[in-house]
Amino acid sequence: MTLDATAAAQPLRVGLCGLGTVGTGLVELLRTNAAEIARQAGRDVQLTRVASRTPKPDVDLGAASFATDLESVVGAADVDVVVELIGGADVALEVTRRTLEAGRPIVTGNKALLALHGPELFRLAAEHDATIGFEAAVAGGVPIIGALQSGLLGNRIEWVSGIINGTCNYILTAMTQDGADFADVLAQAQALGYAEADPSFDVGGIDAAHKIAILASLAFGSPVDFDAVFVEGIESIGGEDIEYARRLGYAIKHVGIARRRDDGIEVRAHPALIPETALLAGVNGVSNAIVVKDNAVGVSTYAGAGAGAWPTAASVVADLVRVARGEACGVELGGAASVLSIEASASPYYLRAPVRDEPGVLAQLARLLGDEGISIESVIQREQAVQGQSGEDAWVPLVLLTQRVEESALRRALARIESQPVVVGPIVSLRVEPLESA
Amino acid sequence: MTLDATAAAQPLRVGLCGLGTVGTGLVELLRTNAAEIARQAGRDVQLTRVASRTPKPDVDLGAASFATDLESVVGAADVDVVVELIGGADVALEVTRRTLEAGRPIVTGNKALLALHGPELFRLAAEHDATIGFEAAVAGGVPIIGALQSGLLGNRIEWVSGIINGTCNYILTAMTQDGADFADVLAQAQALGYAEADPSFDVGGIDAAHKIAILASLAFGSPVDFDAVFVEGIESIGGEDIEYARRLGYAIKHVGIARRRDDGIEVRAHPALIPETALLAGVNGVSNAIVVKDNAVGVSTYAGAGAGAWPTAASVVADLVRVARGEACGVELGGAASVLSIEASASPYYLRAPVRDEPGVLAQLARLLGDEGISIESVIQREQAVQGQSGEDAWVPLVLLTQRVEESALRRALARIESQPVVVGPIVSLRVEPLESA
Repeated sequence: MTLDATAAAQPLRVGLCGLGTVGTGLVELLRTNAAEIARQAGRDVQLTRVASRTPKPDVDLGAASFATDLESVVGAADVDVVVELIGGADVALEVTRRTLEAGRPIVTGNKALLALHGPELFRLAAEHDATIGFEAAVAGGVPIIGALQSGLLGNRIEWVSGIINGTCNYILTAMTQDGADFADVLAQAQALGYAEADPSFDVGGIDAAHKIAILASLAFGSPVDFDAVFVEGIESIGGEDIEYARRLGYAIKHVGIARRRDDGIEVRAHPALIPETALLAGVNGVSNAIVVKDNAVGVSTYAGAGAGAWPTAASVVADLVRVARGEACGVELGGAASVLSIEASASPYYLRAPVRDEPGVLAQLARLLGDEGISIESVIQREQAVQGQSGEDAWVPLVLLTQRVEESALRRALARIESQPVVVGPIVSLRVEPLESA
Repeated sequence: MTLDATAAAQPLRVGLCGLGTVGTGLVELLRTNAAEIARQAGRDVQLTRVASRTPKPDVDLGAASFATDLESVVGAADVDVVVELIGGADVALEVTRRTLEAGRPIVTGNKALLALHGPELFRLAAEHDATIGFEAAVAGGVPIIGALQSGLLGNRIEWVSGIINGTCNYILTAMTQDGADFADVLAQAQALGYAEADPSFDVGGIDAAHKIAILASLAFGSPVDFDAVFVEGIESIGGEDIEYARRLGYAIKHVGIARRRDDGIEVRAHPALIPETALLAGVNGVSNAIVVKDNAVGVSTYAGAGAGAWPTAASVVADLVRVARGEACGVELGGAASVLSIEASASPYYLRAPVRDEPGVLAQLARLLGDEGISIESVIQREQAVQGQSGEDAWVPLVLLTQRVEESALRRALARIESQPVVVGPIVSLRVEPLESA
């Protein structure tokens, strides 16, 4: 998009679709920081139209008009840029398509939309010489999209990894610091507004998977098939796992990981043990942090507020300023990358097996692991028998850290181990990610 | 700068002045990452001319021509953008002025040049519709300039703080981890190439002061008078200070700090005690990290390689890509900010006083501090008498942490304390910076 001198003197007229938490934050921020925004944009950025299904009479819209139909924004001739903060991938997709087809720039905070329809929308934007800004879609106020699109842009990125779901990080942090149970912390997070009434999207890892899919497509310049992204949540993590991990020198975090390999790319979102000396291990509460490894800078880290009305709205504003300046936010994607099966990934593993409290159990498990070429790095065993259990039913948790192994081999070994009579229940297995940090 | 479609299809022709470590890294990086750079820039980025006082026959310049006079680059008609990696503020200033006056964009990694002449050069750039890219001038490969110029740009920034000198951080980290002395670690750093033969620019804090002056001018949109920036190095930090700080729960880091206040701005570079729970405390070796607090995102952190050929060259490439895309790197500065005297700053202080080993010393010092309204937060005392001292000459270090106090009051109290007969030498005082982190 090129703007001539006359156009640059005119205010940038913004039409907003969606007046939820972030939409309301955007209205407030455009007013509060109007002078700073105008200084950076080189012209005023004015909210002229707002559309939302539900009127919010409490929100002061200033001079902007309000309507309950989106058409009043999308179809308006006096809107220079549309901001889509509706969420979901239905109506939002329609709004985004129509805006781009009209050759108009759009700014969105919608990660589901981009994870599921990004390649189509980026193509549409290129065809119609329009831009899509989506700084707000990943990691709230952390300008990771801008870093990938400009700061690190000439480098070959090897991997991207990060804590990109604030709800998971809040829950795991509280479980770590207070020794509380998952269910209790989740209830507390819901009360504080850090978790939705239906938390499955967050604690199930889907939100993080959407975000890492977007980061992977930017980092590697390839569309990513979201269905091929491996997703695992934090529901099965017990307080005891956090304690055992701590004793082994690790923190448990929910992470997204995208890695370039010769045979394809890995894109996955799951809990992992992170060395407590790594910078990521110290990122607590609802904060987000992303680590990028490229072939020139090496490892760099970006951390900040991963959610919240103002932080996320600030990312929308950053995109609006780029639009006001006439900077391209285009995404050039090459051919689709081959997303590898999780079975092809490799890492050390943390294993917690409930076993009968009898001699020779460790040797038996070590042999079955050894049959698949898996070595044991360290062991925590001989805990007291679990409370309330005694006699023949008594069992103890046997905790192991393996050396690096391909997941397919681990799964074969676990299947055999779980069929042993001395193993009295399912084995908890968590990946260990020895990521470097800066 | 606006590029029409025809121009955008042409390669961007780069003229490089200076072929030191970073210059050589740039030559290598432009070749190694040529495909990634072209994809991001939308066209090829070609090195066409190189000038350096000293020929470097070992460096493969590809198709680029070489000359020992800078005129061959600066005066060339077939150079679209000049990269200045000469260093210093004499010749580099001339090259930068002439390039901008010709309306040509320039990319520089020269922090001294920008700290001392930034306002003049930004004005010159605006007058001639040219751009200055300087991502490489601060924190090597960490894209903090881009973050301040685009990611956080609509926000009102309250403060910026960071570890921005890799040499200081390397030395302090080694002193902390190995318990080694300043002089030994410095010699080791020089042997490894992490410190210059004349280290005073780095360990004396001047380099960090240049960088924080640049960050302050960007963050607050005001020219900063470098002469008003407070500078203190790490030469007087002893291994015992690091150990006492550790016992009190702090790490000692050399930091740059810029803070907006109602009555002006603080801009300073000095060692400080950082709570060991803060993310910055975990940034070790030659890494850099910058923390920004603004009114929308809150606290965000950027960390990575602070120096080195490829990381710094990567920041030059990021600017070249912006130039290739026709994005403005302009800096709009308002009126000069009033840089406050260090005496007006306030913080808790760490004090280490060599005192005679006799009763009542602490009470005496506490009274003198109290006379200036300074309360003591914690004390480490009653160490063994210093080795080799005994009898009347015996002395012990008395270590105090004060509550928050204005520096002017602290200086008055220290002057009186140092004149007491029980105090046998100068008092070491270090600021405590309880910065939040994300």
